[in-house]
Amino acid sequence: MRWLVLALALLAAPACAQERPSVTLRDFGSFHVGGRSATISGEPVKELMLTPGGAPLKIDPNGTYLVESMYVQYFLPAERHGAYPLLLWHGGGLSGVEFETTPDGRPGWLDWFVRAGWDVYNSDAVERGRAGFPPPGIFKGEPMFVTRGRPFEQFRIGAGAGSWNDDPALRRQLPGSQFPMAGYDNFIREQSPRWVTTDEAILRGYIAEIDRVCPCVILGHSQAGQFVFRAAQARPDKVKALVAVEPSGFGVPAQAALLKDIPVAVIYGDFIDQDARWPAIRANGMKWVEAMRAAGVKVDVISLPEHGIHGNGHMMMMEKNNAEIAALIQGWLKDKGLVK
Amino acid sequence: MRWLVLALALLAAPACAQERPSVTLRDFGSFHVGGRSATISGEPVKELMLTPGGAPLKIDPNGTYLVESMYVQYFLPAERHGAYPLLLWHGGGLSGVEFETTPDGRPGWLDWFVRAGWDVYNSDAVERGRAGFPPPGIFKGEPMFVTRGRPFEQFRIGAGAGSWNDDPALRRQLPGSQFPMAGYDNFIREQSPRWVTTDEAILRGYIAEIDRVCPCVILGHSQAGQFVFRAAQARPDKVKALVAVEPSGFGVPAQAALLKDIPVAVIYGDFIDQDARWPAIRANGMKWVEAMRAAGVKVDVISLPEHGIHGNGHMMMMEKNNAEIAALIQGWLKDKGLVK
Repeated sequence: MRWLVLALALLAAPACAQERPSVTLRDFGSFHVGGRSATISGEPVKELMLTPGGAPLKIDPNGTYLVESMYVQYFLPAERHGAYPLLLWHGGGLSGVEFETTPDGRPGWLDWFVRAGWDVYNSDAVERGRAGFPPPGIFKGEPMFVTRGRPFEQFRIGAGAGSWNDDPALRRQLPGSQFPMAGYDNFIREQSPRWVTTDEAILRGYIAEIDRVCPCVILGHSQAGQFVFRAAQARPDKVKALVAVEPSGFGVPAQAALLKDIPVAVIYGDFIDQDARWPAIRANGMKWVEAMRAAGVKVDVISLPEHGIHGNGHMMMMEKNNAEIAALIQGWLKDKGLVK
Repeated sequence: MRWLVLALALLAAPACAQERPSVTLRDFGSFHVGGRSATISGEPVKELMLTPGGAPLKIDPNGTYLVESMYVQYFLPAERHGAYPLLLWHGGGLSGVEFETTPDGRPGWLDWFVRAGWDVYNSDAVERGRAGFPPPGIFKGEPMFVTRGRPFEQFRIGAGAGSWNDDPALRRQLPGSQFPMAGYDNFIREQSPRWVTTDEAILRGYIAEIDRVCPCVILGHSQAGQFVFRAAQARPDKVKALVAVEPSGFGVPAQAALLKDIPVAVIYGDFIDQDARWPAIRANGMKWVEAMRAAGVKVDVISLPEHGIHGNGHMMMMEKNNAEIAALIQGWLKDKGLVK
């Protein structure tokens, strides 16, 4: 495929961590977008103790709150090569940090695409990170937290359930895994508590981002699969390409035709067939791909091992060969006429 | 004072929002630092419903977690003029976003100091923003949330208690206030839930940042007053200057002499005398200043109105004249030999 050749040609440039060239930005900054007003009433005044033995602080929780906005940080290179802004949407239980410096200190995809000349908008979805979270009662239920070993077992870093052990000598990492285990604990520190009842609020936030920033290209990971496709279905004229990295959620099948003018890439890593959970996740993805194709959408399904890229789990944007995969995506975007 | 003259001379450069010159960075990125391992055991497995009517997801909360780390993002300009890295530490109920683009879309202090040639490290303290928060039981108590009107009344934007009204026509903003009310709701969206029992964990995180990044200059706002002074007392050889912007917490008085080789600036805005709460907060600050001075520490107390800078409340880093105040701080740092 032509874009793979282009990708390999592009590989050399921004991947070197030792002697990094400087990067010139015409601007950088951040904003919040979206959300709504919510009123809490009838709750008792709480007393919080600031210091042991000190006077209690009275906090009246009643009043108006602004909730469910999201946080967006942007980096705009002086030399633009991306035809449109590139929006990065993180996975579940994570924040925009997923695309920043890797847990072992190498450049992440945010850095890579900025240096490749894209206006990059990296965000924390509603409820995560710098988006903040609202007082009790606004979201249903309670947030989930991630134990140290769970991502190792679930994200095809280790060999599935039971492969984690706090003792590094007893962990069973997948043979050939590209995950930089030197940074594993930093990856765990990036985890962001998530609710499981907030999809609609998150989607509204992303649509508000689109309304502010786009037309654009959107790259979404994992949980963001449902948001990239559903947001594009809500704003089909604003989205010029979609890259879904191992999506775990999808669009509305009956409305797949809304995407027919949007080129779509769906990317899968390695080790899927030998995992207990991932064949089903990919099968769901392929069902959605078939629904899109039946509706006339042009979809490229890119399996990294079929392109000679081996050893990647679910967190490919931070794995050792993350620049190689970024270059492959860049090649695909160039093939779609989105790189100037 | 010499540094005020320098400050005024510097004012013109990075304040213009319309035609911003590009900025060249030799690098930018992020990392987490600090924290500890914590084990939860004996808790029942929870069932979370992902979709209404769907199968419940079983979540076993027991296990090892990594908690109480903090998030740091860095911007390193190609042309360095700061003698050391500059660490920005936000106030209570906020995150590093406080120093980014202002709520009404102008450049914040992060941008200003990067463009002035400082290696800037902007962070989210333990518990806030991208630092994440831990499962129940790790922090004592519950987080506090901020209603839409509270910062208006507490931060000398409005004329104290009762000055807020959801109807803009009925709000009583302080006459001459520099707060950009066009961005007020965006400021509220920046608010980050805070616990009131986590000071020691936050301090440990900041000390871990110092151990990784410093020697350095530290600028802390409001709640961070206690952290800048206490962290500097823990690492006096690593801190080359301290700027405390309206500190609400302070160092350990008996150990004030530990700071004797560190120049200190304490900055206060306008409207303090006419507020119900702020005279006491400033009086506490002045008591701490006197303790430092008695121990041989060189402290400059800078009251903005006394330097002809009027209209600033507690959120001066995002007020309309924020560049003027940044330039004043830069002048002070230059006077201390910290600008190359």
